[in-house]
Amino acid sequence: VNETAALEWIRNLSSKTHQNRMLLQGIGDDCAILRPRPDEDLVFTTDFVLEERHFERESHTAAEIGHKALARSLSDLAAMGSEPVFCTVSLAIPPQLAGRWLKDFYKGLMALAAEYKLMLAGGDLARFGKVVADVMCCGRVPRGTAMLRSAAKLGDGIYVTGQLGASAHGFVTRRGPAWARHKRPSPRITTGIALRRLGVRACMDLSDGLSLDLKRLCFASKVSAEIDSALPMARGASLDEALHGGEDYELLFTVPKSSAIPQDADGLPLTRIGTIARGPAGRVRLDGRELRPQGFDHFA
Amino acid sequence: VNETAALEWIRNLSSKTHQNRMLLQGIGDDCAILRPRPDEDLVFTTDFVLEERHFERESHTAAEIGHKALARSLSDLAAMGSEPVFCTVSLAIPPQLAGRWLKDFYKGLMALAAEYKLMLAGGDLARFGKVVADVMCCGRVPRGTAMLRSAAKLGDGIYVTGQLGASAHGFVTRRGPAWARHKRPSPRITTGIALRRLGVRACMDLSDGLSLDLKRLCFASKVSAEIDSALPMARGASLDEALHGGEDYELLFTVPKSSAIPQDADGLPLTRIGTIARGPAGRVRLDGRELRPQGFDHFA
Repeated sequence: VNETAALEWIRNLSSKTHQNRMLLQGIGDDCAILRPRPDEDLVFTTDFVLEERHFERESHTAAEIGHKALARSLSDLAAMGSEPVFCTVSLAIPPQLAGRWLKDFYKGLMALAAEYKLMLAGGDLARFGKVVADVMCCGRVPRGTAMLRSAAKLGDGIYVTGQLGASAHGFVTRRGPAWARHKRPSPRITTGIALRRLGVRACMDLSDGLSLDLKRLCFASKVSAEIDSALPMARGASLDEALHGGEDYELLFTVPKSSAIPQDADGLPLTRIGTIARGPAGRVRLDGRELRPQGFDHFA
Repeated sequence: VNETAALEWIRNLSSKTHQNRMLLQGIGDDCAILRPRPDEDLVFTTDFVLEERHFERESHTAAEIGHKALARSLSDLAAMGSEPVFCTVSLAIPPQLAGRWLKDFYKGLMALAAEYKLMLAGGDLARFGKVVADVMCCGRVPRGTAMLRSAAKLGDGIYVTGQLGASAHGFVTRRGPAWARHKRPSPRITTGIALRRLGVRACMDLSDGLSLDLKRLCFASKVSAEIDSALPMARGASLDEALHGGEDYELLFTVPKSSAIPQDADGLPLTRIGTIARGPAGRVRLDGRELRPQGFDHFA
């Protein structure tokens, strides 16, 4: 396999899938070119997926890794309540993976992209000892409506989508729906858009565990949080997995006392888990006692 | 060093340097938020810098690697004739580099960013066995004016900026100005903007060597090229280094017969090296004989 052939294959795949009319130029030039719409803001995020850090090649297929690489970035778009526009994919792989593995990676990624009409508009391809993928996603929202970590207010109810702890539980058991969820996370794009349309202003995605991520939201909003242990938990998951397990990719959001919120959005249950309270910025209490984050620290 | 402290340090560095008013939100939320200007297109590019592929940690300082990681992406913005707006930086490093090395990497990167008023608006940070950096850059151009690989026309003159072969020559000799140029490439941002303002429509950057990159430009424009061997060569560089050496990051562009082009732009000489000619798409001839690309193939 040579690089030119691999790039040509990726370019063809991209041209055969969803085309976004905002993109004047996709793969094939030095840059992708986007013509923005006048009444929208654009949001950008980028996330790594690294061999032996985020997956093992023995337990994840190439298609699953492609799916996961995109899902991590899409989850950030979901947190802002944005509609996906395009992605760029930087992929480094050992040369022996430049044939079928490479194609399966892109097929897995593009299958998820197609669900959200996301266009593959560029990237980089390189040879390396381990698999490294870095996916940048761009989304769009009506001006001034992007949901923020910093918008939680005193008295807001704290909510999560779906169930917590599935990914961490699956990582331990390596079987059943929890393992499937770990391997193929679902970014909450349509739920995020629904929440934004309901008027939700404060939101983030749960990538590093509720205890750490809620602390971050509180820190950004300069508030404290009181939550209770009656959390919506994935089947089989422990309270520890629900509190501290990463990679659930559910949404964490807050809602003013005065606002009504439905019981579900886009088929996903919305569960109140606590209240934004007075207190030092970033403090989180569980059943009245301080909750220390045990989420993921990459350098710990 | 823990991750939270490292991220906080990066965020502080970003907030102390150039702020772009188009960015409503930089580092600190799930996504960066950009409010585009109504009369401009946006361009996007992303490039890897990988340990043992693009540099050795023994011969490059952390600041040089940070500089190079950004320079590669900025060179793509230059090729479109765009003004830099913001970048995101995904960086994976061994844990023992999470202190001073990490800071020096960002200082080197931000020093180059400051030259072009580029804002650091987000990214990712992870632990990994080798250094991996992936930098995404966003630039802006007046609507419909981005220079393209696909815009070369029959009869156009073919030009390059600066001198060729310095980077390849420096890589061999490991000393003098050529080695400095290899380690600290200068993206041709201001020259690219000047060329766009002169009305140049066809341009790309020279990252993989003239022989391969000119072939790509000709292929994208469905034309052939005739060049001669009287190339503007860097001091000490051989014709082979000028033709096939990568990482020069000069600009390759074409100009209609009828247009006048100055002898230099922004202090950089502009040299005519040949003519866009009739013939099969992608064919390049040197002094009348077919020139085979020997540029970089990552999987060769």
